[in-house]
Formats: sequence, structure tokens, C-alpha cells
Amino acid sequence: VNIEIINTGSELLLGRVLNTHQQWLCRRLADLGYRVNRQTCVADNGPSIETAVRESLGRSPDLVITTGGLGPTSDDITRELIARILGRKLILDQRVKSQIDSYFLARQRVAPPKSEVQAMVPEGALVLPNANGTAPGLAIELNPNPFSPEQKNACLVLLPGPPRELHPMFLDTVVPLLRRQLPLQQAFVCRTLRTTGLGESLVENKIAAPLDSLVKAGLEIGYCARIGEVDVRLAARGANAAEIVKQGEDLVAALLGEIIYGREDETLEAVLVRQLTEQGKTVALAESCTGGITANRLTAVPGASAVFAAGLVTYSNEAKKSILGVKQKTLTAKGAVSEETAREMAEGARKTLETDYALSITGIAGPSGGSAAKPVGTVFIGLASKEGTTVQRQFNNFDRETFKYVTSQQALNLLRLALV
Amino acid sequence: VNIEIINTGSELLLGRVLNTHQQWLCRRLADLGYRVNRQTCVADNGPSIETAVRESLGRSPDLVITTGGLGPTSDDITRELIARILGRKLILDQRVKSQIDSYFLARQRVAPPKSEVQAMVPEGALVLPNANGTAPGLAIELNPNPFSPEQKNACLVLLPGPPRELHPMFLDTVVPLLRRQLPLQQAFVCRTLRTTGLGESLVENKIAAPLDSLVKAGLEIGYCARIGEVDVRLAARGANAAEIVKQGEDLVAALLGEIIYGREDETLEAVLVRQLTEQGKTVALAESCTGGITANRLTAVPGASAVFAAGLVTYSNEAKKSILGVKQKTLTAKGAVSEETAREMAEGARKTLETDYALSITGIAGPSGGSAAKPVGTVFIGLASKEGTTVQRQFNNFDRETFKYVTSQQALNLLRLALV
Repeated sequence: VNIEIINTGSELLLGRVLNTHQQWLCRRLADLGYRVNRQTCVADNGPSIETAVRESLGRSPDLVITTGGLGPTSDDITRELIARILGRKLILDQRVKSQIDSYFLARQRVAPPKSEVQAMVPEGALVLPNANGTAPGLAIELNPNPFSPEQKNACLVLLPGPPRELHPMFLDTVVPLLRRQLPLQQAFVCRTLRTTGLGESLVENKIAAPLDSLVKAGLEIGYCARIGEVDVRLAARGANAAEIVKQGEDLVAALLGEIIYGREDETLEAVLVRQLTEQGKTVALAESCTGGITANRLTAVPGASAVFAAGLVTYSNEAKKSILGVKQKTLTAKGAVSEETAREMAEGARKTLETDYALSITGIAGPSGGSAAKPVGTVFIGLASKEGTTVQRQFNNFDRETFKYVTSQQALNLLRLALV
Repeated sequence: VNIEIINTGSELLLGRVLNTHQQWLCRRLADLGYRVNRQTCVADNGPSIETAVRESLGRSPDLVITTGGLGPTSDDITRELIARILGRKLILDQRVKSQIDSYFLARQRVAPPKSEVQAMVPEGALVLPNANGTAPGLAIELNPNPFSPEQKNACLVLLPGPPRELHPMFLDTVVPLLRRQLPLQQAFVCRTLRTTGLGESLVENKIAAPLDSLVKAGLEIGYCARIGEVDVRLAARGANAAEIVKQGEDLVAALLGEIIYGREDETLEAVLVRQLTEQGKTVALAESCTGGITANRLTAVPGASAVFAAGLVTYSNEAKKSILGVKQKTLTAKGAVSEETAREMAEGARKTLETDYALSITGIAGPSGGSAAKPVGTVFIGLASKEGTTVQRQFNNFDRETFKYVTSQQALNLLRLALV
């Protein structure tokens, strides 16, 4: 199945608006076993949209999805343009017209005169109702595809631009249409394992050769590296897909072991909140150089309040002393960025907040503040528990934002591993 | 000037990663006076990338920018593929190789064997150094363009996928190259004013009509709404561009007044750190529902340590009492989410940390925890200073992530306005 997406909108090419449609649609389609081969973004002008649609249909796609340009304003030209390219008349659809009128009536507003253009439907098109706006979507069967005449069945789906209109319309009407018109020939299974602690090439080095025979049997492996983590995606098609992916997953799990922190969309912070909740444990944080990002990540998880007592972002030495009880002697003799300070921060936070665990982070984020013995990027991460306190030294020589994220990832991971 | 962007990456078409490159590159190019005509995204496979590059070059572009596929793993094929399409040999560049080795050395790691492929450079290509990673970018002049032979000068720029590598590389090396190779025919002036506190349509309502005569003289106005803020972008071309934009800026500044917090790419947190530094003042934070995002934003600004003492993320009631000195009586009688608690949090933080200012935030982020009197989204933001304490009530009825960001924005803005 060959699917293409065309996003229209000058605001996208001026960089004023982030295109979230690509990820949203691709993700939904991938989870259904469909693959998008290409996504194109063009401005709201006739020639650009026309070229993109002609080229796309010329590649014999099974499905082309366009987004945007169905509204009532002068830059909304997709509907009319596509009718013209396909040589189909636009006909006023009375049902759509009365739906638009009802939409405005329900909001105690009068339908603007131009809103009627949204009720114009190309001959033979299927109307996809819009529950959250006025412009309906359209599905047009091309049999044959005029730009690739040897192709018997192609489908063109026009969706509105606003995400809160597009999302429900896609799920409610396009997905059933897709399953009916383009049923998958083969079963499809996909599994994502999320790892932290090793770089992308090291992850690949550990698993690529052992997975070789499964790859020959049809396993597809994908790596996705983000800051501080690498996803391994295993997929297969056909009758043996589930078995192949399962074997691949077991092998990767055995090879990568505890660097795998989760599956599918689970975040490291969500795994940690789940572990703490299941074990009935609490945690406190004492952050310095990471400036609160670790607390912010943990509290992004609904339900964090059951396990997270407090995060103390003690940036100044005074705060380290008054809030966490770090000794002046330690700060003078060893420095704020030292194993000893990390230890006292973690122990101080755990004692003050009476939690089961406390994580501490102290380091040099840069761009300035480094020395020969402790260059920019040096970090000490402490973990205090009733078993005692351990301190890990790391070297994260990145820009400030990446430094903070990677360091928080290491701290969260330290606690995750202690809870395994 | 005709510019196209090709984003490569199967993770993009699988919807695993949001494509932020399109917006980022389009925005930077638009601010320089260049317009992107088309953006395409294809998977990491030879035929898809080859087709996209051939088609793109066939449209006689002045510049094609590709992103991704320059790393060391097996799905990083852009470099090799493009060398092949253009019929250019790949040659090991010793300088790049030693830069890669130094990169790993500085991080106390051994360069993996495959990392050498990143030092392979197509004949005649210009190397764009990578300050934040191992894969350099490449700029290839096509004279003529082999896929559009009548075109004498085209340029192909290959950039790495990770944003923290691509962003500085684009600004440091691609922008100067662009100015040199593709100078604009007409002067172009662009100015962005950043506002917070009013929605997009209200901002537009205040300025659109008064700017009308300048628009007739050639001023372009663009609005860009992000969470918690709206940018107003003023641009013009030609001999009078600077004068027209200046008049527009003065008018907008007069009409919008103190809701404008900065210019160009300045963030609200950077403005605040600057204000505090200039005035020699310090601040402490006491956050509850925002979970540390405000501390994280402030500490993202280099130099924040001079003005930021500490951020106390007191999630639990116990922490509010033990760390900030909030009274049990207040928590019982008024609740953790109340004007009184916000007041005691701000005053407690200011007293404990001996700062000039303290901001406090307490509210209900949701999804649960609301009541009829205090529904999900209710927030109290306190500001304590030597002049006394004020508390602002806000209602931010959004998803959890948006709630945290918008609320931190309001808190930072409250202090900004106090410092004006």
C-alpha cells in the first residue's frame, strides 16, 4: 500500500506554524500497519498545489491525503483546484449546506455568505462529515487514476487543516474507509523497545549481528536516537509476523538487558513513577545544575504526586546549606561540584523530606565555570536510600539544554535501576 | 530564489518523531527574506531519497537542503547516495576524521569503527563543521545542475538530523553561504515583537486597522501564536523597507505597550534574567503544580546563577510546611490551592532564601483534583518583595503540559512587569 500526504499552507512554509499533521497521521497509519511513503508541504497557491497533486498521483499511490485549504477564506483553494484537475463538476450539496447552517445556528451565529463554498462537492465524491467545524472532508475514488492510467484504484482524501477537526474526522471516517478500500494483504506486527544508557551505534553493535537470521526471515529493525535515549523498533508482516517480532524482542531483551527501560510510548519518568507507585516508595530531588528539569519531567506524569515529595533546586551555595544542610566545610574543601557535596545533598533532601529515596545532581552545565580537574560537563549524581548513598560521576559535555536533559535522564535511570 | 527542503528519516514517516526542522528552517529563512517553496519528507531508503532529490533538482531550485542520514549507522545513507547520484567520488577527509576522533577523545570515549564513514566527503564538496556532533554537513555546488542542465547554479546542502547539531551549523555556516551565493535582489527587513498576555485575535484586533496604511505601502504583518505567547512579525522589501518596518514597529509598540516583552528570538526567561542582572536583584521560586518548569526555564539562561537562588518544588503539603513554612492551619482552612497558601509560599521562600523577590505557584494541573469552587485549571500565583506580597488568580484549563507552561509564563511575566 502506497500512501502519500500533502500538507498545504503558506504558514507552514513561512515557519509560523509547526506541522503536526505529518507526525499525527503517520503515527496513526503506522500503528494500523500502513506506511506513508512521502509527505510534501506546499504553499496555498494554485500552481504549487496542482503540481504536488499531479506528481503525487503520477506515482500511482493507493491513497493521497491532503490537509488544509477547505475553509471559506480566499486562500482556501484545495477543493476547487482538485475538482478542476480531475475534471469534475462542483455541485452544491444541500445536506452539507444545511449542516453548515445548523453549525452556526447552534452557536447563535449567522452563517457568513462565503461559507456556502464549503458545501460544494466534486461529482462522485464521498462527504466526510465534520463534527467540529464547517468544512467537510472529501473522499474521491479515482478509477482509473487519470495521472497514472494503468492504475485502476486510487483514492484521494481531502481533510481540513485544524487539528481538532482533522483528528476526529480521520479516526471516525478515514480509518474505516481505509480498512474497507485498502485492506492489508498481510498481518502486521510492530513493537518498540526504549533504551537509555548507550549510544545508537553501540546499541546497533550489540544486536545487529545476532538479529541477522530473523532479518532474513522478514524482521525489520529501526533505530531512533533521541537525546539520552535510543528506540529499537521491530516489525514484520505476514503469517509469521507475531512470532518473528516476538523472537526478535526476546533476543533484543536478552542482549540489551537493563538498558531497556520501557516499551512503546512509555517515558522513563512514567516508568519511574510506576515503579515507585507499585513499590509504595517516595522520592525527593535535590538539583543544582539541572535547574529543575528532573522535577519537571517527573511531575509531567499524572499521579506523580503520590510518590514525589519535593524537588529542591538549590542553585546557590547558600541554598545548598540552608535547605539541604550541606556543610560549609564540604563546599570549601571539595567544592559545590564534588562527590561529597552530591552525597550531602542527597542525604539532606532525604532527611528533610522523609522520603525513601533522594536523588541529587550537581555539576557544571557551562558555557563557563569549568576547570582542568572539573571541566564543563562534569556531573555528580547521588542516590540516597536506607541502604546508604552512592554517587556516580558523569561527563556530559553538551550545550546547556542537552546537558540538562541528558543529566536528568542519567539521574532518573539511576533510580530506575535501583528499583528493578 | 527557489528553495526546497527534503527531510529524510523513516522515523518521521512512521510518526515516531515530530519534524521540527521544517518550521525551524522555514522560519530562519523567512526572517532572512528567503521563501521555501516546497518541503518533502521521505524514508531512509535509497530509492525514496534518490527520487526526491532527482525530482527536486529537476525543478531548478537555487538551493536544496536535506536533513538527516549523515550519521554512522546502516540507515544513514544520504551522503553516499547523493555522491552516487551526482557521480562524485567519496574521499576520506583527514581533517574531518581527526575532528571526529577529537570529539570522542574529549568525551573520554573511543571512536566506534563505523564513525569513519562520516569523514567521507564527496569530491568538490564544502565541509560544514559540526560543533555538537560527529557528522559534518556538506555543501555541494552544482554548475550545471545535472537534473536541470539549463540551470547554471544550484546548491545542495546536506545537514545532520539532530536539531542541536543542525541549528548551530545552519546559523554559523549555511546563512553566510546563502548570503554569498544567493544574495537577495531587494533589501529585506524583518522584525519580530514578542508578546505575552493576550490571545492572537485580540493582538490582531488592536493593531490591524492602525497598520493599514503601512500595509498599503508594503508592510507585511504575520502573527504566530504559540502556547502562552504571540509573535508579531513585521517585514518589508525594497528601498524603503527599513523605514516602513521601523514605523510599523513604533506603532505596534505604542499600541501593545507592556504586553511586548522582547524582540526577535529573546525568550521571556532571558528577559527576566537580564532585568534582574541589570538591577542587581535576586529571585527564588516556590512551585507546586508547575513541578519545576519555571526553575527549569530560568536556569536555561546562561548567567542565571547570578540572580536565581533556588526553586523549591514543594509538591506535597509536608514539603510546603517543612521547606516553606506554610502553616497547617492555612492548608486546613483554605487548602493547598488558595490565595493564602500562595502568599505564605512566596513569603516563606523569600525569607528562607533571603532574596529580593520570590514567586510562588499553586494550582490544579489535572486531569483530576478539581472541585466546583476550584475547578481543574485554577491557579494562584504569588509575588513577594520588600513592598509586600500580591497574589493573582488565573484559570488555565488546558492539558497538563500546556497548563504547566502557560502558568510558568504568567508567573515569569508577573515578575517581569514588576521589574519594568
